[in-house]
Amino acid sequence: MFQSFDSVAEPQAVAARVDALRKGMRTARIDAYLVPRSDEFQGEYVPPSAERLRWLTGFSGSAGLAVVGPAAAALFVDGRYTVQVRAETDTKVFELPDLPRNRVAEWMGKNLPQGCVVGFDPWLFTAGEVGRLTEALAARGLKLKPVTKNLVDVAWGRDRPAAPVAPVIAHPVKLAGREAAVKIAAVQDRLEADKQDWVVLTLPDSICWLFNIRGGDVSHNPVVHAFAILPAKGKPELFIDPAKLTAEVRAHIEAVAVISARTGFEHRLRALGRISGARVRLDPETAAFAIQQRLGGSRRLVRGADPCIVMKAIKNVAEIRGARAAHVRDGAAVVRFLAWLDKEAHSGKLDEITCVRELERFRRETGRLKEISFDTISGSGPNGAIVHYRVNVATNRRLREGELLLLDSGAQYQDGTTDITRTIAIGKPSAEMRERFTLVLKGHIAIATARFPKGTRGIDLDPFARRALWEKGLDYDHGTGHGVGSFLSVHEGPQSISRGGMVALEPGMILSNEPGYYKKGAYGIRIENLVLVRPCEKVAGGEREVMSFETLTHVPIDRRLIDRALLDENEIDWIDAYHARVLDVVGPKLDGSDLAWLERACARL
Amino acid sequence: MFQSFDSVAEPQAVAARVDALRKGMRTARIDAYLVPRSDEFQGEYVPPSAERLRWLTGFSGSAGLAVVGPAAAALFVDGRYTVQVRAETDTKVFELPDLPRNRVAEWMGKNLPQGCVVGFDPWLFTAGEVGRLTEALAARGLKLKPVTKNLVDVAWGRDRPAAPVAPVIAHPVKLAGREAAVKIAAVQDRLEADKQDWVVLTLPDSICWLFNIRGGDVSHNPVVHAFAILPAKGKPELFIDPAKLTAEVRAHIEAVAVISARTGFEHRLRALGRISGARVRLDPETAAFAIQQRLGGSRRLVRGADPCIVMKAIKNVAEIRGARAAHVRDGAAVVRFLAWLDKEAHSGKLDEITCVRELERFRRETGRLKEISFDTISGSGPNGAIVHYRVNVATNRRLREGELLLLDSGAQYQDGTTDITRTIAIGKPSAEMRERFTLVLKGHIAIATARFPKGTRGIDLDPFARRALWEKGLDYDHGTGHGVGSFLSVHEGPQSISRGGMVALEPGMILSNEPGYYKKGAYGIRIENLVLVRPCEKVAGGEREVMSFETLTHVPIDRRLIDRALLDENEIDWIDAYHARVLDVVGPKLDGSDLAWLERACARL
Repeated sequence: MFQSFDSVAEPQAVAARVDALRKGMRTARIDAYLVPRSDEFQGEYVPPSAERLRWLTGFSGSAGLAVVGPAAAALFVDGRYTVQVRAETDTKVFELPDLPRNRVAEWMGKNLPQGCVVGFDPWLFTAGEVGRLTEALAARGLKLKPVTKNLVDVAWGRDRPAAPVAPVIAHPVKLAGREAAVKIAAVQDRLEADKQDWVVLTLPDSICWLFNIRGGDVSHNPVVHAFAILPAKGKPELFIDPAKLTAEVRAHIEAVAVISARTGFEHRLRALGRISGARVRLDPETAAFAIQQRLGGSRRLVRGADPCIVMKAIKNVAEIRGARAAHVRDGAAVVRFLAWLDKEAHSGKLDEITCVRELERFRRETGRLKEISFDTISGSGPNGAIVHYRVNVATNRRLREGELLLLDSGAQYQDGTTDITRTIAIGKPSAEMRERFTLVLKGHIAIATARFPKGTRGIDLDPFARRALWEKGLDYDHGTGHGVGSFLSVHEGPQSISRGGMVALEPGMILSNEPGYYKKGAYGIRIENLVLVRPCEKVAGGEREVMSFETLTHVPIDRRLIDRALLDENEIDWIDAYHARVLDVVGPKLDGSDLAWLERACARL
Repeated sequence: MFQSFDSVAEPQAVAARVDALRKGMRTARIDAYLVPRSDEFQGEYVPPSAERLRWLTGFSGSAGLAVVGPAAAALFVDGRYTVQVRAETDTKVFELPDLPRNRVAEWMGKNLPQGCVVGFDPWLFTAGEVGRLTEALAARGLKLKPVTKNLVDVAWGRDRPAAPVAPVIAHPVKLAGREAAVKIAAVQDRLEADKQDWVVLTLPDSICWLFNIRGGDVSHNPVVHAFAILPAKGKPELFIDPAKLTAEVRAHIEAVAVISARTGFEHRLRALGRISGARVRLDPETAAFAIQQRLGGSRRLVRGADPCIVMKAIKNVAEIRGARAAHVRDGAAVVRFLAWLDKEAHSGKLDEITCVRELERFRRETGRLKEISFDTISGSGPNGAIVHYRVNVATNRRLREGELLLLDSGAQYQDGTTDITRTIAIGKPSAEMRERFTLVLKGHIAIATARFPKGTRGIDLDPFARRALWEKGLDYDHGTGHGVGSFLSVHEGPQSISRGGMVALEPGMILSNEPGYYKKGAYGIRIENLVLVRPCEKVAGGEREVMSFETLTHVPIDRRLIDRALLDENEIDWIDAYHARVLDVVGPKLDGSDLAWLERACARL
């Protein structure tokens, strides 16, 4: 089992833990202390050893910040978590300011004594965050001060879990598509072109991509926690806990890099900071402030994005081949689940958790599942309208006739990462459900069929997914698509299809296409496939080359929810062609009643 | 006559003028000198007295920069002008680097001696431009230095025309919709909210809007050249040449402001710069560097956008009423022109200039025309494919059978500014012309019929105008829409429908809707109407309020160019409804053969 359904709230422990932290603050001569959700790698997931915010406050969400002052304390979370946080923390200890996170400084200005010294762990905030916060606090007469020892860890003491030491595995070049040496040379070319001598890499998925390695240091994303320093010429140095390396993997890495203990990283940074005239590239928006400090401060550095990010986003031929294979395999597993669900749903005995477990079972039966790529969202009825819903034993609901089930899930296979959402009618859906499902579907098709010239950014495509909803005075409050890794993070930048998606799309990028609609207290709808940006090509009679999407996901879209009258001919043709292709590609992997179910599900509209 | 068709190139004068400038540079102890197209108001149009770039280089385009070094000299223009500049300047004197303008510093680094001092007139560059250029030149060992006396003016001498002193006229509150005192109070509220004591206003159209005045200091835009300083409390001060004011207008202004001579402005800025603790707001991207200098430099200032810009963009009820009336009047004039054109085009005697003159004649016959709102673009055949084409006697072409005429024109009436483009078939158009016209029309309709929620920006709508073209591998290289003033600038910010349109659209904003297609060497197509953002409203059955556009322009779209088979039913309905409305609104203003023509032009598809 990869997913747990415990209801984890333990607000009763919060007061004592905050007291212990305050004791440590006095010892460290700090008036206030900041506790973020991030660890030193700034990823979406953190290992149990870095769940400091959760330990201190009880809050288990994926983003947040606690400020503990001498008397007042506040816990800042975004709109997704306003309900959840009340259940999980002790509201007698933590104020829950109803503010966007950039107002944190404002709260501190009002609630902390003048001249207060605010401590923070320099490994848990990026250099960019510290710069902005320093300025905002200075304007309010407060001083921000890095504290070397993490004060939560001191208070946590022996109960704190050890840092993860999951074994590193080599990612075969057959799947990676490019030798690590070739990738390293490409990054070095970039440094040469940008006239830089070194780059410090701090993002685990960049490092995994560069060295063709994978690991298991956090849930769901097969990343290795490590740092690296890459010179413009010569071998890069990888800083990693040696306990994670077998002799075989060590040899795989040593072919292209020098391996050093994780503890050597800080020493090496300081040495680099002392080389006169060295041009060291660092991304202040992703690297910890502590790294910038040890390199000698921002003036010694060249600001620049991690060069691996864009290279990793553009999948090569082997990665694309892998993604296609992974999606056929995953499609068959999801289809088997859907066939099972259709048979069982009417029993009245299924609930949201059963669906998560069964779906995972069908994926495990492929024999190739490494991990699910995130905690499955299984929301029936009103739970489907909670965009970031995660079912637990307390919220679990039975599937009822006349309701919708929104199921958003994904898998990590060694050849590719999947992410799919299907909305399924349990019993007979209402006319309104069918109308809204069809509007979402029109948006989904508008993205799937878009053609667009070089230079088009995700921001330029996002409105296509919304037009049919806007027409009816409806919308959804999330982006339409995120980038997806190759057996790496299921949320991967820099590209996105969203209101903020300013990065130009390039052939080889993989994104999700997931418009939705949510009726609060009633039901949620989302239709998500992954799409691959195809190479530029000439259209007959056209002048400019255009790109388009290949849909990678192969699972039928619930025909019972489609109101055919709302679709135009091109849209109907797309659905029929999509279903024909699903049957074509996934059908051969099935037999018996599963195949019969798929044939019915893929019938022409 | 408002438009001239002279072919103005006089490259033979350039060498002597540059010599004279170099003499002045030596006297001023300057090694190089920058000559921009802008004047101290940073507008799109400059008066003859400020046509320094044109005097020095011969180049008559609306944007450019000359750099004159001790030996080398270069003239930088953007892609629109690469052909024109070769005909107008002396290429033995000026190099024409094929570079986007931000590479100016690069050229200077390579072509000017190390340690060179580069002079510039601090009134002709914005504070923001000077900041960026100082940094870029410093990196190349060059020093930027403000020179008080304009060295082109010195060389130009007595031949330089005097600065304009067009009479100021009061803009009646019946048309402005709001008393100047009310507008001033609104700006003062903004300053109070932003905790600022003063704002320096440098944009002529902001000043005209604020004080309800209009003028004639430049072509086409009825603006007054003046500056203003507005305190958070008390009367604003308007700095203006008194020769522009009649006693009556003086009284109109003095009801709300103190009038000072233009020459008092600098003195007043210095005085303001000396008030300890004064919080003075200035927009470094629109205000001249000289103003920032006199206020004591950037550290003494609060950076902030000119608060009039957004207020001016959102038209009030009276301005909207005026815009509607102006468009009916203008529509009738354009329809009479089109009826005339249809009758005469086959004679083979018409040319591009005749069309400009006749169109202007019909507009003058309304008895209400103040000015055309820009030089008419009248491009037949291949000239239509030149996006910024301005016909002159040298480029003028006869209208020929089987060709298209692209006609982009507008009028200034006291109650509103218009801007319309129609593409007209002369004789029988080809199937390709009709196909491409219809694709552009699909984009135009997609904007005209869009519904969108609060917070939608122009960048979110722009792709709707392109989708049908992208589908066929086609596109156009300009924005889809710009803001339009109320008897003010025909290009007005901050809103736009474009790749860079990050400002949220608000009810009351007026924009153009003008997708196009250009086939180089063959023909150009553009369909432009002005649209008004309607108030938010609930859609039946919807949840979120949405905005939409009211099309203001009432002139038929050439049915001979529409390929009905390429339109869907909703698109056909839109065209038929649009034409029915044109006939309904403009028909009563016409009679005889004009009305008969309109009835035919507005027939159902």
